[in-house]
Amino acid sequence: MPDFRREPLSGRWVIIAEDRAGRPSEFSTRPARCALTHCPFCAGNEQATPSAVAVYPAEAGPGGSWQVRVIPNKYPSATLSKRVSIVPESSHSDGADALFVERPAVGVHEVIIESPRHVASFTELTDDQARWTFRAYRDRLQALRADDRIEYGLVFKNCRGAGGATLEHAHSQLLATDFVPLEVEQERRFAGAYFDQYGRCLFCELLRQEIGARTRHVAETETLVAFCPFASRFPYEIWIMPREHLSYFEFTNQATIDELAVLIQHLLRGIEELFPDAAYNFWIHTTPLRDSRHEVFHWHLELTPRLTTQAGYEWGSGCFVNPVAPETAARRLRELGSFPR
Amino acid sequence: MPDFRREPLSGRWVIIAEDRAGRPSEFSTRPARCALTHCPFCAGNEQATPSAVAVYPAEAGPGGSWQVRVIPNKYPSATLSKRVSIVPESSHSDGADALFVERPAVGVHEVIIESPRHVASFTELTDDQARWTFRAYRDRLQALRADDRIEYGLVFKNCRGAGGATLEHAHSQLLATDFVPLEVEQERRFAGAYFDQYGRCLFCELLRQEIGARTRHVAETETLVAFCPFASRFPYEIWIMPREHLSYFEFTNQATIDELAVLIQHLLRGIEELFPDAAYNFWIHTTPLRDSRHEVFHWHLELTPRLTTQAGYEWGSGCFVNPVAPETAARRLRELGSFPR
Repeated sequence: MPDFRREPLSGRWVIIAEDRAGRPSEFSTRPARCALTHCPFCAGNEQATPSAVAVYPAEAGPGGSWQVRVIPNKYPSATLSKRVSIVPESSHSDGADALFVERPAVGVHEVIIESPRHVASFTELTDDQARWTFRAYRDRLQALRADDRIEYGLVFKNCRGAGGATLEHAHSQLLATDFVPLEVEQERRFAGAYFDQYGRCLFCELLRQEIGARTRHVAETETLVAFCPFASRFPYEIWIMPREHLSYFEFTNQATIDELAVLIQHLLRGIEELFPDAAYNFWIHTTPLRDSRHEVFHWHLELTPRLTTQAGYEWGSGCFVNPVAPETAARRLRELGSFPR
Repeated sequence: MPDFRREPLSGRWVIIAEDRAGRPSEFSTRPARCALTHCPFCAGNEQATPSAVAVYPAEAGPGGSWQVRVIPNKYPSATLSKRVSIVPESSHSDGADALFVERPAVGVHEVIIESPRHVASFTELTDDQARWTFRAYRDRLQALRADDRIEYGLVFKNCRGAGGATLEHAHSQLLATDFVPLEVEQERRFAGAYFDQYGRCLFCELLRQEIGARTRHVAETETLVAFCPFASRFPYEIWIMPREHLSYFEFTNQATIDELAVLIQHLLRGIEELFPDAAYNFWIHTTPLRDSRHEVFHWHLELTPRLTTQAGYEWGSGCFVNPVAPETAARRLRELGSFPR
């Protein structure tokens, strides 16, 4: 069973999940390409996975011809199991100054299988599969609201080995926890301070300035803007934000959700044109589920191909060295001429 | 010329260093093994690198039979050049709320070549080379004190491709900046709050409890303790701390510096025994150069093999999923029976 541990020098939460690893010797090898016949995510192999918690389209029903399928992660990093901890926030210490804080990992870990066919990239999905995938994100985040132990649900996608994917078949994940992760908490804190000082949303202001500058913008749709952020950590990092102030991803209307799915496909096709078979990740930052200050935080999606290796400087400093200015990245992406403008 | 940019949603500094990349198409290929005859770090090829700023042993002199050689990084992430910025802390914004903060990257970026011979790992150095390497860290950090623009110098090492090394020949780096990096600032803030509340060093207390628990300790020498930290982010992460409260790595006495060099070699040989040819990184966290509260911060070295790939959850959350509990890692390392105890 996984545990949450708090880093005593930073407050960062770490998930210790030994069940997720087989033997350590397995680390050195990642499947380059999984054998089609054994892929647990392919249609026909449903018995190899836990039962679905949702399928799309809805009328597909259990065992029907699903296009997108959501299942519990078989090796979860957090669970809602009823295990009671004797010391709920246990301390290994001698009292007041508990340095070693640990508790059972309470949360939800689901996998969103994005296609019944064995494809690797989000760009290989049909338009419908792409849309159903993003609707699934919305629906599953909404479902988390029912359990008030859950504070945050992070939707994320790993594509290809360098992106951290262990299975090739296109899928994304939702990992929800009873804490708000550091990166979201930090953005929420900055946005909160900004709102308190200036009386407006930091993200709306950022978007206004990005649209005005036009040096880092990449694509626009009716309701969304994509740009390479000013202090991009990674080459070709792209953020997508709704133009309108929208706090909660899970309450976004379907037209915008669908637009987002198609826009991501366009952007990733551009990335793959520049860097064939690039690994990539994306994730969604949204207002924490129990945070009622809807005026402060503005959901956005962060997408980045994995073109560089993080090294000792990045890990040791928390500061990133990016060899491609976002203005250069945005220009090269715009020059492809394939994005909505 | 590189620039520092501040991430407007987190305060994190990012270094935009376009000179460091050749064409983006170079990203996809890393040299698996560099050809001996062309390695710029091998003895005899000194003309391929900038002139040394230090050589060890000192009597080797310029062009002499050096064992360890420190040179300016040819593709620096920060420099002390006299370039004057017209807007020293430039703002792209409309006044009060400068979201886009950018300035020339002021700092020092050096490379410590750890051996005249073409070896890949710190474990392949002679004892003397290992010691001279760590003495070089100390000396170069001391030298930074002369320029009061420099706030912090991060010593770090990347070994092998997955560790972010682009050249195979064993080397480490010192990247100094005019700001204190986020990770160090965060630890410093936690330690400062702890000291103010309890009147003692957080690190000393941590060490006391780690030594007491004996479940995560790995090795001990007269002046140093190595353990797998309670909330290890990575499998087989190891921290080394001096037993005594030592704030500034650069003022550590030579006996301890030498002990550290040899201890690291032992630990890395253990890691390589468990995981042959493992990539790894280490870095040193020390009291910021201009921080005079020597009672608060306690230098330590953080070492981690790179056995896992960071994926969307880690990047998006700032929270890490570690599939090997530090107690398991420490036990397996102790079972090798090859460390000083």
